[in-house]
This record gives sequence, C-alpha cells and structure tokens, in this order.
Amino acid sequence: MPVSRQQFEAVFPRLVDDIKEHCVKYKLPEQALQWFEKSLNYNTLGGKYNRGISVIDSTRILLGRDLSEDDFFKAATLGWMIELLQAFFLVSDDIMDSSKTRRGQPCWYLAPNVGMVAINDAFMLETSIYMLLRKYFRQEKYYVDLLELFHDVSFQTELGQLCDLLTAPEDHVDLDNFSMEKYTFIVIYKTAYYSFYLPVALAMYFSGHATPKNLQQAEDILIPMGEYFQVQDDYLDNFADSSVLGKIGTDIQDNKCSWLVNQALKKCSKEQRQVLEENYGRKDRKCEARVKTLFAELELEKVYKEYEERRVTELREKISQIDESDGMRKEVYEEFLRKIYKRSK
Amino acid sequence: MPVSRQQFEAVFPRLVDDIKEHCVKYKLPEQALQWFEKSLNYNTLGGKYNRGISVIDSTRILLGRDLSEDDFFKAATLGWMIELLQAFFLVSDDIMDSSKTRRGQPCWYLAPNVGMVAINDAFMLETSIYMLLRKYFRQEKYYVDLLELFHDVSFQTELGQLCDLLTAPEDHVDLDNFSMEKYTFIVIYKTAYYSFYLPVALAMYFSGHATPKNLQQAEDILIPMGEYFQVQDDYLDNFADSSVLGKIGTDIQDNKCSWLVNQALKKCSKEQRQVLEENYGRKDRKCEARVKTLFAELELEKVYKEYEERRVTELREKISQIDESDGMRKEVYEEFLRKIYKRSK
Repeated sequence: MPVSRQQFEAVFPRLVDDIKEHCVKYKLPEQALQWFEKSLNYNTLGGKYNRGISVIDSTRILLGRDLSEDDFFKAATLGWMIELLQAFFLVSDDIMDSSKTRRGQPCWYLAPNVGMVAINDAFMLETSIYMLLRKYFRQEKYYVDLLELFHDVSFQTELGQLCDLLTAPEDHVDLDNFSMEKYTFIVIYKTAYYSFYLPVALAMYFSGHATPKNLQQAEDILIPMGEYFQVQDDYLDNFADSSVLGKIGTDIQDNKCSWLVNQALKKCSKEQRQVLEENYGRKDRKCEARVKTLFAELELEKVYKEYEERRVTELREKISQIDESDGMRKEVYEEFLRKIYKRSK
Repeated sequence: MPVSRQQFEAVFPRLVDDIKEHCVKYKLPEQALQWFEKSLNYNTLGGKYNRGISVIDSTRILLGRDLSEDDFFKAATLGWMIELLQAFFLVSDDIMDSSKTRRGQPCWYLAPNVGMVAINDAFMLETSIYMLLRKYFRQEKYYVDLLELFHDVSFQTELGQLCDLLTAPEDHVDLDNFSMEKYTFIVIYKTAYYSFYLPVALAMYFSGHATPKNLQQAEDILIPMGEYFQVQDDYLDNFADSSVLGKIGTDIQDNKCSWLVNQALKKCSKEQRQVLEENYGRKDRKCEARVKTLFAELELEKVYKEYEERRVTELREKISQIDESDGMRKEVYEEFLRKIYKRSK
C-alpha cells in the first residue's frame, strides 16, 4: 500500500528536533531558535507531499519488500529533503512573483512581522537539507553523490526560475519573448528535475540501484514525464473545472509563458495574434475572457488531448523497453505515470 | 610578497567562463546566460578581496614556498569561492536591509530591471561555489570536507544574519532587545566564520595541514580575532575620520546592535539611558549627534582602546603557544593580526 500523507508527516517533527539540536549546539539565542522552528513548520508542512512520498514508494518498489522502520525513516528523511528544497524555492518565488497566498494561508513573507527576513529563512530551509544529509547519510558510500545531486538539481531549478522571470516579467507583456523552446527549457529545469527526477534518483541511491545506466534512463523518462505534467498543469489552469481543481487559474492575467499561449502563438492568424497582443497578461477580467474565447476558437483543448495521448504513448513505449536486469523496475515509472495520466486536479 | 588585488582579479574571468560553460551544457537561453554573467561580475568584483587573497597568502606561508602557476590558480579559486559566498550574502542582505548602494554603485536589486530577480541571482552565486568545487577539487581526498565546510559556514552566517535581523529591526527600536551576549553571537556567526576562519581552513586543506587539531586551533584564534575585527568596525563607524574611512558611519541612525551601543548600555546612568532611548535608531541628524555626544561622555573611545590592547595581547599569547610541529605556522595568524591591528579604515 502506498504511504499516506499522515505516515509521511509523522516523521517531520523528529527532523525539526534534529535541526534545532544543531542550532542549540551553536548557542543560537532562544528568540531566533523559535523563529526558525516556526519557519520550518509554516513553510514545509501543508502541501500534498507527492514528491516526498514518492521517494518512499519508489524505494519500496526497488527493494521489492516492505520497509523496515529504519528504512522507512531514512527514505522519508530523503523525501523531506525534497520538501525542504521546495519550501526554499516557494518562499523565495512568492517574493519574486509578489504572490499573496500559498496553501490557503498568507505567503511567509506576508505573515506578521516577517517581511524580507523571509529571504534568509529561505536560505536556512535549504541549508537544513545538508544538515540532515550529514546526520543520516554521512557514512554511506553514496554520500558525495547525494550532495552533488542536490547541488545539481538546485542549480537546474534556479536556471529555470531565472529564465522564467526574464521571459515573463509580470509588469511587461511582450509575446515576442515567448517561444516553445524557452517554454520547454523553463518547465524542464524549473519543475521536472526536482519534482520527477530527484525523488527517483534519491530512491535509486538509497536502494543501491543508482548505476550510471539506471540514472540516465531515469532522466530520459522522468524529464519528458515532468514536462508532460507541467503542460497538463497549464492546460488545467484554463480548462479545468475550478471547483475540482481547487483554485481559479490566473496564468492569462499573470502573463505566464504557458503551454497554451505558446500553442496559440503557433496556430494563430495575424488577427488572432492582435487579440493576444491586446489582451494577454492584463489584470482585467474582460481581457482574460477574450483570451479564453480565443483559446477555444483555436481548439487548444483538442491540441492538448492529442499531445497527451502522443506523449503518454511515447512514455509507455520507453518504459516497456527498460531492462530490469540491473535492478531497475518499470513499476516505479508506471506508478508515476498512473498518478498523473488524465488527472483533473 | 603578498598577492596583489590585480593578480587575484586576473583569475576571475576564467572562473566565469567555467560557470558559463556549465550553463551552455544545459542549453540555457542566451538572454539568461548574459544576465547571469552580468550578475557574477557586478556582484563579485569591486571589493577589497581581503578574504579571497588571504587564502593564497596563507597557502604560501603553509607550504613555505612560492606557488606554482597551478597552485596559485587553485588557491585563488578557493579564494574566489569566499568572494562568491560573500556576494551571495551581500546581494540578499542589501534587500533585507533596504540598502541603497554597495561599493559605490547601486545595490544589485536596485540596478535597472533587476528588482526581486536579485533573490534568485543570489542563489546562483551560491551554487556557483559548488560548481567550481566539483570542477577543480573533486579528485582531492578532502573534497567532502570542503563541501561540508562551505555548508557549515553558510549556515553559521545565516544564523548570525537571522539573529541580527531579529535583534535590530530597522523600523522598531527596542534597546531591551540588545545585549552583549547577542552582540557576540551575531558578530561571530555573521562575520568571523566566513571572513576569518574560512580562508585559513581552506588554505589548510589545500596545503595538506588540515588536521583536526590544527583546525580547532585555527577556530580558537580566528574567531576571537574576527570578533575583534567587527568591534573595531563598529568603533570606526563612529570614531574614524570619515575621509580616511571612505564612508560615513550610519550605525546610530540604522539602529544597529553595535559594540558601542552595547558598551553604552552597560555603563550608562538612568538619565543617560533615557537619552539613548529617545535618540538611538532615529533617522535624524540631531538625534544622532546627541548619541555621539553621549558616546564621548561615556569615554567609549578609551573603553575601546583598552579592549583592543587586551584582546590583541590575548591573541598574541595564543599565537605564541602554537605548536608548529604539525605543519601549522604562526605566521599565518600574525599576518592576519598585522593587517587589522590599529587599522584606520
């Protein structure tokens, strides 16, 4: 049975204690210690934990057995490191994007008395990863590999974020700046590496199956899968039932370099391009509605469905070709794909 | 002869090329690549490079010979990693402190079209350290030690920054929040580890003298020396000739938890405390002048000179007791002390 959110969440308090203990060793004044603990809980808890939990699920599939208590704790700790990495990115992204809420509460930088201290808090969330890696994985022969993996994936995500910020500044609409190439770069680097490749790579190291060949194969499958996931996200932002999705899409008003607008730019006539120029990225409900109508006229829902079928067929094909003799298991990828195929939220 | 600023600076373009090459491998779009290069140059160049250069000077003393071209390059690369770490901190500190200028030009976040993208740029400066460590030091047996050293020192600096931000928020004056204990924590963690311990520790690893005993001794000497350096900085902020110092002190108006205000709080009468309460941390020249008068009345210049002599005597005593049989050299510490003792800028 897959791990539940509750089982995963139950591990976190112990990790917070570990991190606090480390600070106490440094004689951090009490006020600062309490602040850090609050930041850890506020920013790391409350998500869906898909990334963190998939480390545990993948580890179990790779080991082919239920996990011992200690293995469960260690796999969950690796999972929490991804959640900490995500917390680090979300706290800072929210400042950069001037976001207002996150997971149903004010963004951390907008919480009472926080403000720009949130930047330093973001750093401390990131540094917590390396503290936990040292405490629990220093004796493993793949310890350096884990350090380098987190550095690589962090850098990749930062490159994606940089490209995203430069391509779609919120205050300056320029559709010439968008392109399918940039879109692909942004989604692969900003999302796919840390959300899809990282959980499986961590599970592969932990279960002893991280051969160069297996890692390369993981990248070859999970990066296109992560790209598909983000395309789907962009599709749902506009086409999903918002009561099912649990939020109202804002990509059009926010001038996002989304898959839909890039498809529209590819298909549109000169007149339709003019409509986009005049209405995309404006904080105005009427402009947004005009763009939505255009997306419908261009049949982007159909374009998406075709993309989805094509991409999923390719992914299934790749997965079916996996050589399992090296310890890799197709089920790891099938499980990821099963969770996202035709999702509605 | 000690290394000059020019000799050190000449190494940086090669490191920028290395970092760019890494990005090109990832197919980073040109616009983003140019942005990153600009950020690297804008934020890392232009300082005094004391920290970076001292890695090279210390390495030469420890090896007891002039450096080969390759050794010079590697020691300089380690030095540039400290400068990158500092750039990472300064870019983000300037946002958190709402600073206006840095090294005579606008802070990066205030440069044209930058804004909050600077937060992500700060991350990328940090990540560059690990990219360079991997490229040039992966084959060394002390590679993991270097990774952990940078993680440790980063975390220590972040703890110091957190404590500083919580103790002296710019918009809320509360002298009860200050204490000599907090002051000591802040200066040791925010400044001493990365500015004093880190350069010597790096030189010790590189020269092959990083035994646990030598590292512990370095910490025991360099942390109090870094504390002395920051006390001196606080003293100069108020008492130095601003034409010699090259800037006008702003600690009083900025509500800084400085050594002087902490000494004043220790010595002052009830009436003098009242003067501080009413005038410290206000953006007002008259209030500032009133505090300056009080600092003079309390003879803080004399208190500082006594502190300086006491601390330097202690440091010289510690240095003289060093056992050089393990490869450590007193000269490393004497050189650091010589550079800061009775400095006027």
